[in-house]
Amino acid sequence: MNRYAIIVAGGSGSRMGVNIPKQFLPIADRPILMHTLEAFANHAPEIKIIIALPQIYIQHWMDICEDFTFTIPHSVVAGGSSRAESVKHALDGIIENEALVAIHDGVRPFVSKETIETGFLLAAQYGAAIPVIEINDSVRMLDNGLNRPIERDILRSIQTPQCFLLSLLREAYKRSSFEIFTDDATLVEKLGQSIHLFDGNKENIKITTHFDLLVAEAIISRRKTGYLQ
Amino acid sequence: MNRYAIIVAGGSGSRMGVNIPKQFLPIADRPILMHTLEAFANHAPEIKIIIALPQIYIQHWMDICEDFTFTIPHSVVAGGSSRAESVKHALDGIIENEALVAIHDGVRPFVSKETIETGFLLAAQYGAAIPVIEINDSVRMLDNGLNRPIERDILRSIQTPQCFLLSLLREAYKRSSFEIFTDDATLVEKLGQSIHLFDGNKENIKITTHFDLLVAEAIISRRKTGYLQ
Repeated sequence: MNRYAIIVAGGSGSRMGVNIPKQFLPIADRPILMHTLEAFANHAPEIKIIIALPQIYIQHWMDICEDFTFTIPHSVVAGGSSRAESVKHALDGIIENEALVAIHDGVRPFVSKETIETGFLLAAQYGAAIPVIEINDSVRMLDNGLNRPIERDILRSIQTPQCFLLSLLREAYKRSSFEIFTDDATLVEKLGQSIHLFDGNKENIKITTHFDLLVAEAIISRRKTGYLQ
Repeated sequence: MNRYAIIVAGGSGSRMGVNIPKQFLPIADRPILMHTLEAFANHAPEIKIIIALPQIYIQHWMDICEDFTFTIPHSVVAGGSSRAESVKHALDGIIENEALVAIHDGVRPFVSKETIETGFLLAAQYGAAIPVIEINDSVRMLDNGLNRPIERDILRSIQTPQCFLLSLLREAYKRSSFEIFTDDATLVEKLGQSIHLFDGNKENIKITTHFDLLVAEAIISRRKTGYLQ
C-alpha cells in the first residue's frame, strides 16, 4: 500500500505573539516545517508528502523553498478554516481506494523514524494507531470551581503522526460535522473503530511557545553531536 | 510568619540508569540541587531551607558543598523510605506553631521567583496552594484495555512548590497512613481543605530523564543570555 503523510501547517502564529506563523519560524536556521518534512523523507523517500497550508501562505512557502534550495518532493493543498477541513482537502487529493495515511502536525519536527514506522505498521494491522507518551507530573482535574487528583498512570499524552487506513479516515470525515472535533483519532473512533496506542518518542514535541522553541534548539544541537538520534 | 522550603531530594538515580542520584547530576557544571536551593535563596534569603536527603548521601552532599564553595545556609535531615516520610522528618524539625511551608522537588531548579512568591502568598490566604500548568497535548485515558479522549482543558499538570500553612500540613501528616500517598496536596485535601491552584512557570520542569537534562541545559544557557528570567 502507498503511504502518505499529511502535514497540517495551519498555524497563524498568534499564540507566540509574532506575525510569522510558527511553522515558518527557524530552528537551526531553517523553518520548522522543512525539518518536519525531512523527518518523513529521511525515513522513507517513497512516502508521499502533502502539506496543508493556509492559502495566503502558499506563495510564501514556495518562495522560501527556493531560498533554502529545499528539494524534498511534496504537494501543497490550501488548508480550510479548521484543522479538520485542511485534512479533508488533503484527503480529497488522494486517488487510491486504499492506502496508509499519517496525519502529522507541521510543528513536530522531531518525530523519530521508529515512531513513523510503528505508526504505519500498526495502522495497517489495526486500522488506527497513534503515538502517546506517559505523563510525568501529577495531574488534577478541575471540577466545578474545585479540583481533584486524577490517576496519571491511566493518562497518556497524544502525539502525531496519527496513522490510519485511508478508507477508514475517509469514512470518518464523510460522516463528521466537525463540530466537536478534537483530533483525527476521535473522529475515527465514532465509527466504532478502536484506536491502537503505541509509545512515541518523547522529543516529538509540538512547538507552540517560545519555551518550546528553546527546547527545539537544544534538541537540534544535541542531535548534531550524536547525543540524540 | 516564617517561611520554610523543604527540598525533597530522595532520588536514587535508577530512572536515568546511572549510579549518581539525579539531584547530584550537574547542569551548567554544578549539581542540580544547588541550583534548586539558589532559586529559593535568590528569591528571599530569609526563607529557611531544609533538605531531606537519603542518609547515605548526606556526607556526599556536605563534601560537594565544600568542593563547590556552596555557602547558601540550609539544614539537612535524613529522608525516610518514602517522600512522605522525608517530609515528615523535615516537619519534625520545625519548632514554630505556625509558619508557611513550601515543599519542593530537589530536581526542579527552575522554579521562578514569581511561582515561589505566589505560592507563599496564596498559602497564607487559603491554607494550601500549588502551581499548575496547562496541558498542551490532547490526552487519552486508558480504560479496560481500550482508551478514550478526555477533555484537556479541565486537566492541569501539577508542579511544586506545594505551599501550606504549617498547622494544616502537620495535621495532614499526623492523620495519614501514607498508604495511597501521591502528593502533599492530596494528603491535606483529606482534611476537607480545598487546594488553591495557581499558574506556575512552564520551565519549572522536574528533571527525571536524559531528555529533561538536555532541556535543563538549554534553559540555563538561555538564562545566561537574558532570554529567560
